[in-house]
Order: sequence, then C-alpha cells, then structure tokens
Amino acid sequence: MDIKGLFFDNPSRKKAYVNTPLFKMGYAQVELTPTLKPDGSTCANPPVSIYDTSGSWSDKSFHADLSKGLPNLRSKWLDASEDTILLKKSPISEKNPFGGRPVRRAAKGHECTQLYYARKGIITPEMEYVALRENMARLNCLKGKMSPEAPRNSLLIQHSPMPSELFKAAEITPEFVRGEVAAGRAIIPANINHPELEPAIIGRNFLVKINTNIGNSSMASSIQEELEKMLWAIKWGSDTLMDLSTGADITDTREWIIRNCPVPVGTVPLYQALEKVGGIVSDLTWEVYRDVLIEQAEQGVDYFTIHAGVLREFIPAAAKRMSGIVSRGGAIMAKWCLEHNSENFLYTHWDDICEICAAYDVSFSIGDGLRPGSLADANDSAQFGELRVQGDLLKRAWKYNVQVMCEGPGHVPMHMIAENMRNQLEWCSEAPFYTLGPLVMDYAAGYDNINAAIGGSIIASQGAAMLCYVTKKEHLALPDRDDVREGVVTFKIAAHAADLAKGHPAAQYRDNAMSKARAEFRWDDQINLSLDPERARKFRASHDGEFAFDNAAPHHCSMCGPKFCSMRAMREIKEMFDNGQ
Amino acid sequence: MDIKGLFFDNPSRKKAYVNTPLFKMGYAQVELTPTLKPDGSTCANPPVSIYDTSGSWSDKSFHADLSKGLPNLRSKWLDASEDTILLKKSPISEKNPFGGRPVRRAAKGHECTQLYYARKGIITPEMEYVALRENMARLNCLKGKMSPEAPRNSLLIQHSPMPSELFKAAEITPEFVRGEVAAGRAIIPANINHPELEPAIIGRNFLVKINTNIGNSSMASSIQEELEKMLWAIKWGSDTLMDLSTGADITDTREWIIRNCPVPVGTVPLYQALEKVGGIVSDLTWEVYRDVLIEQAEQGVDYFTIHAGVLREFIPAAAKRMSGIVSRGGAIMAKWCLEHNSENFLYTHWDDICEICAAYDVSFSIGDGLRPGSLADANDSAQFGELRVQGDLLKRAWKYNVQVMCEGPGHVPMHMIAENMRNQLEWCSEAPFYTLGPLVMDYAAGYDNINAAIGGSIIASQGAAMLCYVTKKEHLALPDRDDVREGVVTFKIAAHAADLAKGHPAAQYRDNAMSKARAEFRWDDQINLSLDPERARKFRASHDGEFAFDNAAPHHCSMCGPKFCSMRAMREIKEMFDNGQ
Repeated sequence: MDIKGLFFDNPSRKKAYVNTPLFKMGYAQVELTPTLKPDGSTCANPPVSIYDTSGSWSDKSFHADLSKGLPNLRSKWLDASEDTILLKKSPISEKNPFGGRPVRRAAKGHECTQLYYARKGIITPEMEYVALRENMARLNCLKGKMSPEAPRNSLLIQHSPMPSELFKAAEITPEFVRGEVAAGRAIIPANINHPELEPAIIGRNFLVKINTNIGNSSMASSIQEELEKMLWAIKWGSDTLMDLSTGADITDTREWIIRNCPVPVGTVPLYQALEKVGGIVSDLTWEVYRDVLIEQAEQGVDYFTIHAGVLREFIPAAAKRMSGIVSRGGAIMAKWCLEHNSENFLYTHWDDICEICAAYDVSFSIGDGLRPGSLADANDSAQFGELRVQGDLLKRAWKYNVQVMCEGPGHVPMHMIAENMRNQLEWCSEAPFYTLGPLVMDYAAGYDNINAAIGGSIIASQGAAMLCYVTKKEHLALPDRDDVREGVVTFKIAAHAADLAKGHPAAQYRDNAMSKARAEFRWDDQINLSLDPERARKFRASHDGEFAFDNAAPHHCSMCGPKFCSMRAMREIKEMFDNGQ
Repeated sequence: MDIKGLFFDNPSRKKAYVNTPLFKMGYAQVELTPTLKPDGSTCANPPVSIYDTSGSWSDKSFHADLSKGLPNLRSKWLDASEDTILLKKSPISEKNPFGGRPVRRAAKGHECTQLYYARKGIITPEMEYVALRENMARLNCLKGKMSPEAPRNSLLIQHSPMPSELFKAAEITPEFVRGEVAAGRAIIPANINHPELEPAIIGRNFLVKINTNIGNSSMASSIQEELEKMLWAIKWGSDTLMDLSTGADITDTREWIIRNCPVPVGTVPLYQALEKVGGIVSDLTWEVYRDVLIEQAEQGVDYFTIHAGVLREFIPAAAKRMSGIVSRGGAIMAKWCLEHNSENFLYTHWDDICEICAAYDVSFSIGDGLRPGSLADANDSAQFGELRVQGDLLKRAWKYNVQVMCEGPGHVPMHMIAENMRNQLEWCSEAPFYTLGPLVMDYAAGYDNINAAIGGSIIASQGAAMLCYVTKKEHLALPDRDDVREGVVTFKIAAHAADLAKGHPAAQYRDNAMSKARAEFRWDDQINLSLDPERARKFRASHDGEFAFDNAAPHHCSMCGPKFCSMRAMREIKEMFDNGQ
C-alpha cells in the first residue's frame, strides 16, 4: 500500500504539532500565498490550522509501516496511574505482528473510565488533549489575526441557538471538558487497550463529529482492503471508525485496524457472536456474547453498539411497519426474542455488560434497533419506545461510570427531526446523540449521501453530537473507495454547517480565509483550504488549463470571461473607492 | 443528437397523459412489478405517476426533430382571446428554422398577464393546467390506493409548519391557483410568445421548483451543446431553465432553445445589452437595454432577472465586504452607477420596464445583485437594503399586473437562513422567493451542490418557492454534462425534502411506494422509482451481478449476506406473527 502517496500529495498542507509538557498534538497546517496589492506590493497571509484525524500517517517522518503500528501516545499516561494493571498477553495469534501484546484492565477495586475521573474532579491527559484539539480554530485567530480586510462579522458567530458557557467563553478549557464528561453530556471513547488513540470528544458543546463504517461482509474484502479503507477514511477527516465486519478473520482484521488507527474504533459485538454460532440466531447465548465483549475490549475497541433497547413488547408494532426493522442488530435480537419467547438477553444482562465495559473504559453506543427505515415509520411507537429504554439503560450504565451515547435514526422527514432531538435530550438526560442521517426522503437511491447530509446537518445543528456517514450506494451496494471519500466529505460539510449554526468558537475562521482567497484570486489557496483539495484541483485544472492556478494572471477566469467577471468588476469598484470616489 | 436515446432508455418509465376537454397533460408513469407473497401468489402494485418536465421529448411518438420545435400547446388558448394580437414577423434571420414566426403582444387597451386575469377572477387554461399538474401525487392516491400493507402515516402528512387552506383541502383546485396568483403569492411565468410552454406554478403553497442554468460563455459552447444541456436538464426534472449566455449568437441560440423548451425560460437581459456595447460598462444605456428587453420578450422569454435593486447608496457598504458583489449583474450595475455618478438606470426606468413586460406577460425575477458571496457578508445592510427595494419594486410592478418573484442568497449559515425568509415574506408581500442555495459554508469547493442543497432544503421548507441549482464545480469551473445531471438531481432532493416538510398533499406517495418495494426486494421497482434510475441501476449491477435485479432470488443481497440481512429476518418475523405467534 502506498501510504506515502496517500498522504503527501500536497506540499502546502503539512502535518504540524503543538507541543505541551504532556504531549504533542498533531494538526494540519495550510500555508497560504501572499495577497498581491494593486501597487504591486504583497502582504503575507498567516497559515490556517485544521483539526486533523489522520494521526502519524500524515507525518512525513513517520515509518509508514502498517506492521509496526502507531506510536503509543497514551501509554505513559496509563502507566503513570495505579488504576490499571497489565494482566497477560493478548490472545491474538503470534502470526499477527501484534500478537502477544500485554492486555490492560482496571486493577481490583479501581476504576479507570473518563467518566469516573471527571466525576472525581480529575482532569485526565485525554481531557487536556481534546480541549486543545477543539481549540484549533481559535488558535488560528489568536496567532493569525485576519488581515487588514477583516470580515464584517466577528470570527465568533453571535447567533448561537444554544448559548452555553462554552460559547460565551469562546474557549474550551480542560475544566470545561471535564464538566461536560462528568455531566454525561460528552464522552471521550478511549479504551485503555487503545494507547495509539489520539483522543476526541463527542458531545453537543463540541465540534460535530462524523463516523465512517468499514468492514468486510461474508462475501468480500481482505485485511489489506480494510486497512486501506481505514486510512482512506481518516485521510478525509473521519472522526471515528466503525468496523462492521461480519466475515472471516474478524479478530485478526480488527487487531490490524486498532493498532493502526488514531481515531476511536467502534464495533457491533453481536455480529461476531452470530458468526461464532454459525449464523443461527436461536443459538446465540449470553455466554457466547460475553466472551466476544471481553475479547474485543481486550483488543482495544473504544465503543460498542449494543441493541439492548429492542424489547419484546415493541416487536408487534415493528412487525406492522412499512419497513419493519432495518437495523441488522435489531432484527437479529427481535428474531431471538420471538424464537426463545424471552426478553432480549442484552437487556437482561445489562449490568453484566456494564461491569465488563467499565473495566476497560469501553463506551456504549446504545443501538437504535428499531430506527425507522422509511418516512412512513418515522417517530412511531416502536422507535420512541426504544428511545425511552435507551434513557433507562444509560442511567444504569452511569452507575458503573461507563460513558454512553445513544444512536438515532434513520429515515425522518425534515419537519419531524426536531421531535427526535427534543425527546432524546429529555429522555436520555442530554447524553450525546449519534444519528444515521437522518435521511429526509426515501427515493434518493444513488444520492443518499446528499439525502442524509440534509437531515444530518439539521439534527446536528439542533444538538446531535455525531453523524454516521451514508454513502451514495446506500440501499444499493457496498461503497467503493471513491464512495467512501465522497461520503466522508459530504458529512464533513454537514458537520461544519452545524458547527457554524451552533456558534462553535471560531468555526468560521477557515471559511473567512477561503472567501478572502476567493476575492483575491488566490487559486492555490482556495484549493488547499477546501475539504478535498485533490478534487478541487482537478476540477479547476480541467477548466482553465495553464492559467488555472496563476494568481498573477489577468483577474478573471474563463467561467464568465473578463467582461462578465464580478470579481474583476469588484476590484475596479474598490479601487474607485480607494481613489476617493 | 440522439434524443431518442436520451429519453427512452427505460421501458418501465413511460410518458402518459391525462386528457381534459382543454388539453392533454403529460406525466411520467412508472409501472411496478407485483408483490410476491409467501404462499407463492402475487398481488399487483398500481403504477406511480410522476410530475414530469420533459415535455413531448419523452413521448416515443414525437418527431424528435429539434428544427421542428415543440407542439404549440397554448396557441389555441391564446388565439381564443381578444387580448393579444399577432403583430409582425419575428426579426430572427430566416436562416434559423424558426425565423419569420409571427410575434404576439397585448392588443391596444388590453392586458394579457396571468396576474391580470387572476385579479379579474378569470381562471385561465394555464391555471387549469398547473392545478392538474400539482395534483399528480394526489391522483396516485385516488387511483392507486396503497396496498393492504398501507403505511401507518397517512398519505397526507399532518405536521405542516404552514397550514393553509390548500393543505387542509388536500386538493389543489384551479380556483385555489387563481387565488394564489391574484394575491401575488405565486406566478405562472408564461410569455404569450412561448406557446410551446407546459405551464408551471411557482409559489410557496405549491411543489418547490428548481432551476437549471445553461449558457455559453464568451469562451465556450455551441448552439448544439446548449440545446443538449436544455434537454438534459429537463430529462432530470428541472422546472425552469435560465439561459445565461454571454457569448456570440445569443439571439440565435435563444430562439432554438425557446422553440424546443417545454419549461419556462429565464434570462438576464443585461448580459446581452453589455455584449451590444462591446463589454464597456459605461457605454450601457437605457435605450440599448430597452431594445434587448423587447427583442427577448418577442422571442418568448418567460422571466427576466433585473438587478434594479442595486442602488448607489448600497455600494459603499458592499465595497467594504469580504466578498464585495458576487452577482455579475450586480457588479455591472454598481460599476455603471459609479462611472456615471448616477442612480441605477434599471431603477429609474422601472415603470418603462413594467410596461414592456406587461405587454408580453414576461414575469420579473427581481435580482439580488448584492447577495452575500461569503458567510462573513450574510444578512448585512447591503443585502437587506436591496431586499427592501425589491419589495418596493414589486408593488410597482403589480400596478402593471406584472407577475413577480424575488431572488435571494447566496452564502448564509444555517442559523441565519430563517431571517432571510421572514424578511422576504414581510418586505416583499409574500411574493415567491427564488434562492441560490443558500450555501451554508464557504470551503466546500468541489462539493458545492451538497453545500447548497442543505441551505436550499431549509429555506424551501420555510417557504422559498424555487431553488436555483448549484453544481459541484461552482467556484471552480463550468459544469459538464454529468455535473449538470448531479446538480439537478441534488436539487430535486432538496425540493422534495421541503415538499414533505411543508406537507404538500400526497408528497409522500412515491416515498411509500419506494419503501414498500424495498421491503419486498423488488429491485427493478426501486430503481425505476428513484430520481436517477440510470445511476441506481449501475450501482446495483456493479454489486450483485446477475442476481442484482431478481425479485424471486433468495431474499437477501450480498451487502450484508443472508445471515445479517435485516430485511430477510424481518420477513421471517412477520411470518411468525402471521402464524399466530
């Protein structure tokens, strides 16, 4: 795999670090070209720092060898505490380069979750790290100062629909982070067996995050392909990764992924449990499931999707729906309940599950097994019944100091989205909401990334903390490389649109830098500041040939031609004013 | 050009007609395959009727010859009235196949606009036509009745945020149409010299419409290419077309387009006027502009974008902005004002312009020359100053019975969109709002179709009547064929999402048909019901090979495989219930 080729295509967009006594934190730095003034002089434009999820892979000095894994950023933090112990060697086969690794868990009588520390009033290195990370855009403002032609709007948007301490303070302090985690309003998914992780925070008073799903199905994909998908997802900015593999080599594939993944990794343990019983739903047992949980927790999975809210009582209503149950985990558990004439064992064993996850700081993503699969099923009794149960489950998890977020829909028309967010905030005690879209219509097959980004931007602006990406192949086929890229970038747009709407501190800085570059015909800067510089460059080059990127070229482009160029006319108008008109 | 190949690729999606004494109205009909029941019997699914903008071009029995033009649907309606007369021959060169055509205008002392008739209490054939057209989805319900497994939600969504007589009645009557036109809340752009037009209505109590821009710039394109773009745009469902040509052969190109275009055609006459004076802004005069207006009105342009609200007093504020003036027409007029030290001649000659347009029923789309070109400029004094002037201008136009809509932004973050809509409704007397996006962020270059669709769906759900499409090449290059297709489909999604949110009668019918097909593994039906069946089919085929479209194949697809197929599990769950569990 050409990792270097994947990350180092753009000399103007480089890995940079903030150094603190505790750690160095990576980000992407975009160098800008200077502004060319009418009198021929130039004026420098400060570089723009961008929140970056690609870890060391985008550092040119890094080894770029997947069999060696990422640096263990968190090991020294974890080693410094007496709350965890190194127990034994990982059970992964020695054929795997990461086999034999020691496994960490909470020491007897100790606790080790971020929620535990937050409630104790302790600021962890993970909290320090995310506070600095969330402040990237603000650092831009402090360092950079916008140039003489500063924008009319301040860099801090003042129209936040959900004013909070955060947005008033305009700075995300470690103490603010701790408070949000302690209140259960945010989580830092960070398994103590994932020391390679660069911590990130998920909560509505922080930047909106996005998740990418990868995973081989029973019929396709290899380890190599899954690793490539992982690198590809973080290259484009995915904040977390869900490994939804259901095929062979699940454990081996996951080990490779976690050791090389700088972002939180989530799974649906039920899939592996079902594989273990040969795909026969009725053969699933708590014991099989429990062993899978422990295996994955020891590997370092940061969050588990658990469909514990699919209760027997909801199944009759779900069976009568237009689309029934469209969640794989939800359908499996509903079938199990009917076949055994019993309550969902994930529900009945919830306390056992909490105990296991607390020992490794695995966060919960309580599944929405009954999410609506069509507009006709949106906001129905099955969906909202499960949401109430999610709220009960998370309160029980909090007793074990397990961090929790809740999964949400699905297919919901625009005008019915707000009800989802309101109910979730109320019934689930403001725990982070992690939604799949929602998709705002049913017949956009082939364009469902766009369909889902519309709903996603709306629910995130109302408070959803993380959006699961949807690709344009949704409902039709598994996504390929380009579909994943387009899906991730689509959701970066939805998330950023929501950050602006929420008034996240300095969220608009990069937009302003882009618009200034646009007004000044700095084409290279426009391209490097965009979400997908490779695509932007290709589009631009296809059009204007050799003049496409020439800042000093006549001030117009061939889109409108010189006579109809508003940007050119604007320069002339500005000059008239400068000349005293 | 292979017109037949363009439109007749799909045997399950055919042109069909509703016949009335006054006209036959075309629509697209999707034939569905039957539902296969567990006992092996089948149950028919009624066809789904879809609002269609492709005119006779999608009728297999039509001549498919661009030099012959479209049938003159409206000629007999126009001939039957004494309000218009046929004056002279068209001045277009006889080399053009449409040269020498008679030109129609209002008879002396008569009026001929839809607004005039509406205010008089007269229901025109155009009003009858659009009423029937807007009811397509409702006709589905009446004819079709959803199958036994009808959705839980009624076909009429009950959550409309803007309840109106319309949504209560659930039927759009010709009298309702007349009332909306009379109140100025809707327009039917229908130049009396565009008899080929299949009338459509633009207003917030109707289906949200979308516009596609075409047009050669000074550096590219031929007549043939422009015609192909026009056909391509209406194939994908564009409701109107703006011809923004600025290069050579403007008049000739436009004649070809209008004679072959079944949807309303809009232009920005200023572009042709500027061409006439060799691109020298200061040489523009009212007389040159007036002659262009008359020429285009005689050709049959249905609506004019006129930047009459760009007043001198707003220019200093605009010059200080982050992005200045990004509208081509706005920048031209601002420059003219400064160079002449005079007020905008489009403003000072507004009454003359109204008089000309009234004589042909050309509608106004009052331009937003000062729309914000970046988030930093959103909702500023220049933008809102112009919006107030738009409101004054439209009241003056109404005195002449000219139909009016207002153009809107632009770049606006999500939380500042509502203010635009509120101000427009208040200051512009509820006249239809026609927006460009808005784009909700600035650095999505390469994906600006998605960026703009997010803002578009939001403002349309709040009442914007028409959305101008944005392609993914926006800010970078001119769109090619595929970009146009993707841009149109993207905005069909935004528009439909808003129709659902507004509760347009029966808007959800096609979604329900799609979701039912999905639950029943009817792959061909899913593809034919989608917005872009060609893409959906390609995506599906890429995945599952020979089984991709086999309804009778084992009930799962290779995306999840049989063990993890929620749809398959759901069938089994439903069967358990049917068997009395």
